[in-house]
Amino acid sequence: MTTPLQRIHNVRLATMTDAGYGLIDDGVVVFDQSQILYAGARSKAPEYPQAEQIDGYGGLLTPGLIDCHTHLVWAGSRADEFAQRLHGVSYADIAAQGGGIAATVRATRAATEQQLVAVTEPRLKALMREGVTTVEIKSGYGLSLADERKQLRAARQLAVQHPVSVATTLLAAHAVPPEFKDRADAYIDEVVNCIIPTLANEGLADAVDAFCESVGFSPAQTERVFQAAKAANLPVKLHAEQLSNQHGSALAASYQALSCDHLEYLDEAGVKAMAAAGTVAVLLPGAFYFLRETKQPPLALLREHGVPIAVSTDANPGTSPILSLQLMLQMAATLFRMTPEECLRGVTVNAAKALGLNDRGQLREGLRADLCLWNVDDPAALTYQFGTNPLAACWHQGARR
Amino acid sequence: MTTPLQRIHNVRLATMTDAGYGLIDDGVVVFDQSQILYAGARSKAPEYPQAEQIDGYGGLLTPGLIDCHTHLVWAGSRADEFAQRLHGVSYADIAAQGGGIAATVRATRAATEQQLVAVTEPRLKALMREGVTTVEIKSGYGLSLADERKQLRAARQLAVQHPVSVATTLLAAHAVPPEFKDRADAYIDEVVNCIIPTLANEGLADAVDAFCESVGFSPAQTERVFQAAKAANLPVKLHAEQLSNQHGSALAASYQALSCDHLEYLDEAGVKAMAAAGTVAVLLPGAFYFLRETKQPPLALLREHGVPIAVSTDANPGTSPILSLQLMLQMAATLFRMTPEECLRGVTVNAAKALGLNDRGQLREGLRADLCLWNVDDPAALTYQFGTNPLAACWHQGARR
Ligand SMILES: [Zn+2]
Ligand SMILES: [Zn+2]
Repeated sequence: MTTPLQRIHNVRLATMTDAGYGLIDDGVVVFDQSQILYAGARSKAPEYPQAEQIDGYGGLLTPGLIDCHTHLVWAGSRADEFAQRLHGVSYADIAAQGGGIAATVRATRAATEQQLVAVTEPRLKALMREGVTTVEIKSGYGLSLADERKQLRAARQLAVQHPVSVATTLLAAHAVPPEFKDRADAYIDEVVNCIIPTLANEGLADAVDAFCESVGFSPAQTERVFQAAKAANLPVKLHAEQLSNQHGSALAASYQALSCDHLEYLDEAGVKAMAAAGTVAVLLPGAFYFLRETKQPPLALLREHGVPIAVSTDANPGTSPILSLQLMLQMAATLFRMTPEECLRGVTVNAAKALGLNDRGQLREGLRADLCLWNVDDPAALTYQFGTNPLAACWHQGARR
Repeated sequence: MTTPLQRIHNVRLATMTDAGYGLIDDGVVVFDQSQILYAGARSKAPEYPQAEQIDGYGGLLTPGLIDCHTHLVWAGSRADEFAQRLHGVSYADIAAQGGGIAATVRATRAATEQQLVAVTEPRLKALMREGVTTVEIKSGYGLSLADERKQLRAARQLAVQHPVSVATTLLAAHAVPPEFKDRADAYIDEVVNCIIPTLANEGLADAVDAFCESVGFSPAQTERVFQAAKAANLPVKLHAEQLSNQHGSALAASYQALSCDHLEYLDEAGVKAMAAAGTVAVLLPGAFYFLRETKQPPLALLREHGVPIAVSTDANPGTSPILSLQLMLQMAATLFRMTPEECLRGVTVNAAKALGLNDRGQLREGLRADLCLWNVDDPAALTYQFGTNPLAACWHQGARR
């Protein structure tokens, strides 16, 4: 028996293969479980008489969406802290009570791997409901070998249990854990000597990330993380220039980083370094919104230098408790003035690039059959209107879910 | 046969009866199709041995949510216009091409009543999915007797076809239609002499609204609309002080307006007038967000003078294409710094008040059995985290939907 073939017709394709949407009216996509066999105009499509025929009802077919920057696996809730802030309690007082990221680290450490899987499921399903077929998940709330491992294993397990692909990123250098208080360099020793090599060896991490910031790790500490990643043969990413310009992006680019993320304070030298290295700029409008940030990422410079731009949720309990990639399209347009074409490229082709995954993110022969069918006339509607979720159907690796 | 009784137990109640949430741990709610028979502590609940028992699994029970300001019935899409703006086309150029509200009026006029019902359904369902049991729907894209009637009839029909209640508001004074170009007073003649009395007489309008603004109608024109509403025995509401201070709120308060809505430019005199009249302040963070407004509504003054505050989507194609009341809770907190208690009151008890509906919006004996069961520990979670939609069950007039 051959692999079942499926053929979607009566659709408009947003192939994302050129600049812009790469639109093809009256398109056809033929695929099996492993890949797209044909994506293009119906008039030029080969015959596949044995394929199951699927009517797209005149909808828009895009690649499956990719959320390329999340901290999806966490335990505990920070709703109380959110309420306290709105009642006028200062961040300093909350931190003094053990709140903030410390609270999430405590709760995540206290949870079992199975508990982490269970509390993350509703978040993952929220993303999937909106067409996400690949999601990146970072560690970074464990901050010890065992607890970072537990987070990454939970992320891997979610991918086994749900029709979605997960790319894992080891973010041990997210914060200094309490047992290393005021000894950040000693913690970085642990990260580079133990956590990175061990978890890389266990195959739990697809990439390595760090938080380079005045309130995070210094460029020198970040570089040690990058060296350890390189030694472990893992690509790097960086939380860079979110709150200040630390020149982390240029450093990351010098290590051929897959992406630099946030970037509100990025300068032209950093943009040029990213362009030269092919590093993707991942913009995170949810965190920008939630923190009421006013400093805009340098969109004009990124465009001018041809840096690929991705968009992601940054889903996390502290600065972006927002589980909606469709909302990020709306916010990237409204808050950053990205065009709808840039927004959609930001969650497909460029998000794939930000994860180093060249097997998805476009509709073309040979790529994975991760597909979204949308009940919209105009691709811009995906960015413009939020809330009605026009997702009509979704296929992950050729299987409708 | 008696009316079937239902009894929800193992829940925490947010009754919304006092200031704040009005929380009752280990609560019970007993209701039939017409009303709540008991809402309170389990320990004090009368026996209802014949009631069907419903386990709330430790969740939070609130009144059904009320979206008290929407323009839900419209035809056409403004996605193309949104894209053009992001590609740098000016609003003036778009208006010169016939875009903006004129495009929505053209499309709405061209649609049949049935077509309006059909295109509105996905928007209504998006709101219902998030727990909305009562929604206000304004006209205002017809701008003629026949087309305003068509919009309001579509709104009424939606309520017949779906398990949700609809309050209609006649907003003929939304914009000057093209056939009255540069003759706003003549259009107001038509509104007050024909549209308001006719549609009021047909029972299609529960209230009357107007857009009082430098780019809308003057206070003098607005007052003529209010007089016509009064003559027709309909309560009034007002789009007021959104872009400038026209002192519309004080005018509306002098007509015992149910609500004044938007209010970014409201001054203390207006706040005092609203407080004295019992007029609700309806804040619309979606429009604030979408227009990238920076002027904040005067929250401190509203609190100081005890004006009830509601929150709503303002769902409309031009300035708030966002069909999510849960997101409005998040935005009211993040953008306006409303507390989670204020946010939840804003979509329950105070939203009911903004519609003049004193039969809903709280959990107490005698009120309608419109209920939401949420899978959250902390009521603040409804405001804090967006996207996972923690709605576990919803009852409209005692019937689970
Ligand atoms: Zn992040
Ligand atoms: Zn409005």
